[in-house]
Amino acid sequence: MTSGTDTTTFTGTAVVAGTAYAPVVWVRPRPELPGSARTVAEDERDAEFERFVTAADTVADRLTARSAEASGPAAEVLQATAGMVRDRGWRKAVRKNVRGGADAEYSVVQATSKFINMFTAAGGLMAERTTDLKDIRDRVIAELRGEEEPGLPSIDGEAILFADDLSPADTAALDIDHYKGLVTELGGPTSHTAIIARQLNLPCIVAAGREISEITAGTRVMVEGSQGVVYVEPDEEDARRQVRESQERAVKIAEWRGPAQTSDGHRVQLLANVQDSNAARLASETQAEGIGLYRTEMSFLSATEEPSVDDQAALYKKVFDAFPHSKVVVRTLDAGSDKPIAFANMDEEENPALGVRGLRIARQNQSLLTRQLDAIAKAAEGRGEDAPTWVMAPMVATAREAEWFSTLCRERGLTPGAMIEVPAAALMADKIMPHLDFVSVGTNDLTQYTMAADRLSSQLAYLTDPWQPAVLRLIQHTCSVGRDTNTAVGVCGEAAADPLLACVLTGLGVNSLSAASTAIAAVGTRLSESTFKQCQEAAEAALDAVGAVVARESVRKMLVGE
Amino acid sequence: MTSGTDTTTFTGTAVVAGTAYAPVVWVRPRPELPGSARTVAEDERDAEFERFVTAADTVADRLTARSAEASGPAAEVLQATAGMVRDRGWRKAVRKNVRGGADAEYSVVQATSKFINMFTAAGGLMAERTTDLKDIRDRVIAELRGEEEPGLPSIDGEAILFADDLSPADTAALDIDHYKGLVTELGGPTSHTAIIARQLNLPCIVAAGREISEITAGTRVMVEGSQGVVYVEPDEEDARRQVRESQERAVKIAEWRGPAQTSDGHRVQLLANVQDSNAARLASETQAEGIGLYRTEMSFLSATEEPSVDDQAALYKKVFDAFPHSKVVVRTLDAGSDKPIAFANMDEEENPALGVRGLRIARQNQSLLTRQLDAIAKAAEGRGEDAPTWVMAPMVATAREAEWFSTLCRERGLTPGAMIEVPAAALMADKIMPHLDFVSVGTNDLTQYTMAADRLSSQLAYLTDPWQPAVLRLIQHTCSVGRDTNTAVGVCGEAAADPLLACVLTGLGVNSLSAASTAIAAVGTRLSESTFKQCQEAAEAALDAVGAVVARESVRKMLVGE
Repeated sequence: MTSGTDTTTFTGTAVVAGTAYAPVVWVRPRPELPGSARTVAEDERDAEFERFVTAADTVADRLTARSAEASGPAAEVLQATAGMVRDRGWRKAVRKNVRGGADAEYSVVQATSKFINMFTAAGGLMAERTTDLKDIRDRVIAELRGEEEPGLPSIDGEAILFADDLSPADTAALDIDHYKGLVTELGGPTSHTAIIARQLNLPCIVAAGREISEITAGTRVMVEGSQGVVYVEPDEEDARRQVRESQERAVKIAEWRGPAQTSDGHRVQLLANVQDSNAARLASETQAEGIGLYRTEMSFLSATEEPSVDDQAALYKKVFDAFPHSKVVVRTLDAGSDKPIAFANMDEEENPALGVRGLRIARQNQSLLTRQLDAIAKAAEGRGEDAPTWVMAPMVATAREAEWFSTLCRERGLTPGAMIEVPAAALMADKIMPHLDFVSVGTNDLTQYTMAADRLSSQLAYLTDPWQPAVLRLIQHTCSVGRDTNTAVGVCGEAAADPLLACVLTGLGVNSLSAASTAIAAVGTRLSESTFKQCQEAAEAALDAVGAVVARESVRKMLVGE
Repeated sequence: MTSGTDTTTFTGTAVVAGTAYAPVVWVRPRPELPGSARTVAEDERDAEFERFVTAADTVADRLTARSAEASGPAAEVLQATAGMVRDRGWRKAVRKNVRGGADAEYSVVQATSKFINMFTAAGGLMAERTTDLKDIRDRVIAELRGEEEPGLPSIDGEAILFADDLSPADTAALDIDHYKGLVTELGGPTSHTAIIARQLNLPCIVAAGREISEITAGTRVMVEGSQGVVYVEPDEEDARRQVRESQERAVKIAEWRGPAQTSDGHRVQLLANVQDSNAARLASETQAEGIGLYRTEMSFLSATEEPSVDDQAALYKKVFDAFPHSKVVVRTLDAGSDKPIAFANMDEEENPALGVRGLRIARQNQSLLTRQLDAIAKAAEGRGEDAPTWVMAPMVATAREAEWFSTLCRERGLTPGAMIEVPAAALMADKIMPHLDFVSVGTNDLTQYTMAADRLSSQLAYLTDPWQPAVLRLIQHTCSVGRDTNTAVGVCGEAAADPLLACVLTGLGVNSLSAASTAIAAVGTRLSESTFKQCQEAAEAALDAVGAVVARESVRKMLVGE
């Protein structure tokens, strides 16, 4: 917290640019959980269970209704949460407790605990879903008690939403007609909240720290999402002017048309990150020139056994079909770490992010990889010369791994590449690139390893800032070797979605940027406002900055002049 | 496994150089554990408990006797294991089970399970001790049944010990009159087994893979510890010649006297890594020119609350007194990750190695750091100009952290430095070094982060090899900035203990090498056999190698000519 001459400010991690000014609304607190059961007489237990079913159905229907109003990932998250409230296993567990004589509220707590323990023991993505479990438990308990639903309050007028952290369902249900900005105590730049906020284009700051709890409901604040600053009770006129300017900017962004280039005509390909055919279709309606990162995990994560080559090919083809005349870059299965795959895993690891993940799994199970490559080749059959299919491996660390992967790709007529996300891959680019046709820098993981700081840790968010000059220096080196060896260098990862950082990356010599499709127009607009030389000078300044905050500020001054 | 023209070979991770040739002996298998209790009549339960006490005392006495024959860390490990067998809490837990009617064997299993669960829940170093718990359980059960003690068999003549993995007590009890080499399926270059093998100077290969189980007891093998190769049934004459040459080398090493320099007189300081005053005293009896890494965790790890400034100062002074006229480099508390500190911790983390550890803890708890610096300053009072006290921070990642630490040190008259173990610290050396008087490269962690591979994972040992050219390139960059800014650059970590790698590091421009004191003479000997120019050429070759294996092989050919 900083107190200037007149305005108190709080700084967090900048996630979505844009300025908003409105009173603070806090998420509604979670209900207090019952610590013990109220005993229900035997002849009332059926009625008690019915009471639970009614409450649960109400909650589920409400979530489904909201899902119908939402679109994209938000709709999916709400639908998935509704599905959990309808889950037969969970309801059975509640029924067992009610039949044992406990009241509905306590039975919900007990049944949910059981599932939380199971999910936690399963680890990884399953463990992350415990947040949803707690969320549905709280919603159903509030409904049983006739209390207001916890989480997002419905409001009239405009507000800035403040929260310790948001559940996925709350984030997905955010009504942007009312909520103009989002500030959370916890979370990180790649947390679920951040991803949805980016999709909604809602000015957002995460990891703002415990101190924001001092800001009471009703206080008027201005959220400046590009710098990550909350201004408490700022001068109203000034705040409204800034919001207006930010809205004018939004209009300009909406009007931008690709292909992307600097003001003096230096071209940069803007591509979309997608995870399924839905996202690919949405991306095809934007100015994206193709797919720069197709994450293939989704088709594996929910499966209990490996999908067949034909099933995989059918899924991949659906994605490819959204871009029939454009480049598609497919990343092979990046399981392990926070994305466990039931049939490919794997011992429990002390540090899963430093464990057997990405291409390392294929080292122990080569046919899992070759079957996927067969499926990709099959899906790509018949695509024209204007629609190249590129394939890249995650977590490549050595030249030997790159060579091995490349051979498997070329045997199948596929164009091989690698993610640059392990620091060693950037440092050894001269040995790795001769085996490949392209690389794509994954800034999220590259930052995590270069800074030795977990990307999901909110306490270390100051280190995992993608503006860290150490990370930019590795990207610079990668681009320089790319030029020497005639290897295309792209960037996928959150860095590519930051318009100012996109200019820096362009200045470093990156050929393509791949980001969430909602971020593309803002990046293209910003690129069109600077010359290539200005981008290069911004890159020089960022590389020479003493740290991330200084880098961002220097570049902002150079390119935006504020 | 590779089959050449005449000899089958297996390759693992090279840990301790030297050549041995002898028949294979496998560690004795662990006893099968009883799955259920035999009920003991009430009037026989006291006798049953006595039967347990007798067996446990026998095991404890045996371990104590072995401890008396050992020295250094080995003696401590054996003594600590004996202490666990005598532990009153554990014995009480056994008694409770026996009094409940279970037989002694099953009671031991149950009581130990309880402790294993507690230790596992405590995490970190405590969790690692579960290996010891299982070990004492198995020894006592074997004793109760009148079976041979599991683990190390006593043998006549010479043998190479083969194991899946060794318990700390087994490793510590290795009788080097009989055991001439050690090969394990699992483990890693920084595992407990590796550390003790290094101390015993016993040719050792770890992570050799499941395939070695094909090698049956009695098979004659040659272990070549510097390259990590096991030769099965090699030509006897050739093997004996190689062993002889290796022994001649050992004699030469024993005769080496410091200070260390290349054959043409380029000086490199050889320093010792120590963790307490015992180790410091042992180091002072070697050719070490001082202490290059004093790990201060030991005084904190066992404490339930923070030791006072005076208590800390007294401990530090004891270490300093072992080197009254030499440099001592103290590293401030490196807690977190695998070294939890009861009073300074800390949420559970998904990836502790990428979490709040090292200097990051001090960011949240500055007085913990300033009190330690006060204690170091106090302990250093009265040391002469020939005995400088340097202090370095672990896990520095940014220039701002370096600046902050430096200010705190200089306020107390201490000479500030930083570990270079986060890749960002090496990449940003030009911004970090101006704040510091020296840096020390921690190769173990630097390798772990640069390769994004857990240093304790045996599956990823091929990546965490300190010969990785990516890591050497970061060290090269660090040395180059060190020269430009007149900042001393040292290396501590296992890399400095590898004689050939020490030559490479010298060629890169490192000013000092700090290693386990037992490794110093071999390093000094090797350095004395090459010119500085040869070291520089070796460094060039290693930097340009395509991977770790090629780097090691090229340098061996250049400097040893084999």
